[in-house]
Amino acid sequence: MIKIAIDAMGGDFAPKEQVEGAMLAVARIPDIELTLYGDEQRINEYLTNSERIRVVHTSSVIQMDEDDPIKAIRNNDQSSIALALSSVRTKENDAVISAGATQALIAGAHILVGRLKGMKRTAIAPVIPSLDGRGTIILDAGANLNIKPEFMLQQALFGAIYASEVLGREKPKVGLANIGEEEMKGRPIDIEVHQLLKEQTAFEFIGNVEPKKILNPGCDVLISDGFTMDIIMKTLEGTAKGMGVMLKQELTRNFIGKIMSLFLINHLKRFKKRLSAEDIGGAMIYGLRGVVLKAQGASKAYGFSQGIKRAAEVVRNDVLNKVTKELSNVQIHTGTTTK
Amino acid sequence: MIKIAIDAMGGDFAPKEQVEGAMLAVARIPDIELTLYGDEQRINEYLTNSERIRVVHTSSVIQMDEDDPIKAIRNNDQSSIALALSSVRTKENDAVISAGATQALIAGAHILVGRLKGMKRTAIAPVIPSLDGRGTIILDAGANLNIKPEFMLQQALFGAIYASEVLGREKPKVGLANIGEEEMKGRPIDIEVHQLLKEQTAFEFIGNVEPKKILNPGCDVLISDGFTMDIIMKTLEGTAKGMGVMLKQELTRNFIGKIMSLFLINHLKRFKKRLSAEDIGGAMIYGLRGVVLKAQGASKAYGFSQGIKRAAEVVRNDVLNKVTKELSNVQIHTGTTTK
Repeated sequence: MIKIAIDAMGGDFAPKEQVEGAMLAVARIPDIELTLYGDEQRINEYLTNSERIRVVHTSSVIQMDEDDPIKAIRNNDQSSIALALSSVRTKENDAVISAGATQALIAGAHILVGRLKGMKRTAIAPVIPSLDGRGTIILDAGANLNIKPEFMLQQALFGAIYASEVLGREKPKVGLANIGEEEMKGRPIDIEVHQLLKEQTAFEFIGNVEPKKILNPGCDVLISDGFTMDIIMKTLEGTAKGMGVMLKQELTRNFIGKIMSLFLINHLKRFKKRLSAEDIGGAMIYGLRGVVLKAQGASKAYGFSQGIKRAAEVVRNDVLNKVTKELSNVQIHTGTTTK
Repeated sequence: MIKIAIDAMGGDFAPKEQVEGAMLAVARIPDIELTLYGDEQRINEYLTNSERIRVVHTSSVIQMDEDDPIKAIRNNDQSSIALALSSVRTKENDAVISAGATQALIAGAHILVGRLKGMKRTAIAPVIPSLDGRGTIILDAGANLNIKPEFMLQQALFGAIYASEVLGREKPKVGLANIGEEEMKGRPIDIEVHQLLKEQTAFEFIGNVEPKKILNPGCDVLISDGFTMDIIMKTLEGTAKGMGVMLKQELTRNFIGKIMSLFLINHLKRFKKRLSAEDIGGAMIYGLRGVVLKAQGASKAYGFSQGIKRAAEVVRNDVLNKVTKELSNVQIHTGTTTK
């Protein structure tokens, strides 16, 4: 049995969607056992089937809009998120998932789970939609600002292993987000990382990828530094939202448009769904000595159950050990190339 | 009369759309005189009305896909683009517009027009669509990689003057593209530029703008370094194109969708048009001792005539002298603040 800790109080619609997502996940995945951390009374309002689900009562909650999440985590070791994270360190559980505040989760994971030996940075690795429906793993989406070439190489390796072991991609392809396809394009760090990635054998490096191909990049993993990746993710979000508004304005501009839109509502809904992260479920926070997943704050039950499924896959496929092993190989290799 | 030089051979559909655009511009704008530089025989195929339009025959053309545009410009001083640019330096014309290769145009402008005194860098300043229909000036879109805070301040000033004098914005607002709204967010350069912009009185600085508001930024001018802005522009382009493909797929997935889409075709066309740069016409290359505009390579006659209109407005409103004056004020100011 794979044991997964759930922060039942984290998320825009907690604990309702978290509890319902947990029940859904148990129904969908036979080899998991879940522990819900949170306010027992509120959890029990929604928990109609406790098969393979246990509840651990916690007395406090870290709010989503906490000003200083790191301090909040330190001061609330009895919060749902802190106890869920600790249960992974003590090996009581194999993985933990939370839809709570990202900063609190990352800070808490650092303090309570600890960093993986050899990993220079932690980062979050979401999957964004792609035209072929497969999705692209994005790294570094942790917004690490002072990034070095070797961190980016580690992220590429992690992404490649995640793509192959969790998303089932054979021979994963890695691309470097950059302003041009030629290998000498970009800032000095991009040129250096390009050379470093070219030498790797653990994955296929397809070279630089211009963000005008952001929805069809031709690779499984797209990497850049944390600042640039955050800019890319936010521009993608802003363009998608803005285009949605424009489309609605154009379609409802006159009577015929309004009537026709009613007929097309299912098509438009499916269009919107393809751009949402609902199916993807959760983004793994990598670089930790345990499996920690961040689900979207706005997750509903289905989306949250997808996150639980993802967490189970990471545990089942032993992703952490595979990453550790690959990293030890690579460090020797990096050492050689930078001599 | 405002005299504008036109590179009739630059652009994906040159000389046809350039010649037709020129005739359209003359019909629309009473106080302009145009000179078409290019292959006289090919131009005359399309030139059905030569009122206020003169043709200067040139014997060579710089190709759009030129490997080394700088070398091409140096070796082809009789090309349409080189002669058009030179006519601005000799004051034969007040402005020049080309839909040819960006690199060749910028390189040629450097060599043949020269840099404005006090300007540290040249850059291109396109206008991207916004939800309110007004558009946002984007700087630095010249992809200058080693940017310094004072260059970014100059760009902000240029953008503000352009917004007020050419786009008619009262009290122009400037925003800094960044990963968070708080003033300490971003890389060291972003934090430094934020402080520098805050001290300015020539425009209103609205602070950091996250690119999730890229289509409704709340400002007239959005600035960042060349690398980041290129990433933003390309992500915007990629998301818009990808969403267009997805929308088409969803709408034509079944019979009803296909029929309904036929009824909506005008709405969808208008939607597409709102996202295109057709109306904007041209982006000014700033930092030069003359008015040089880049029109989109794919410009059709109307879009190209819009570019000509823009060029005339830049000349009519004396933008170059206003920028020069503002820059001399600011340099003293920067000097004071960085003491």
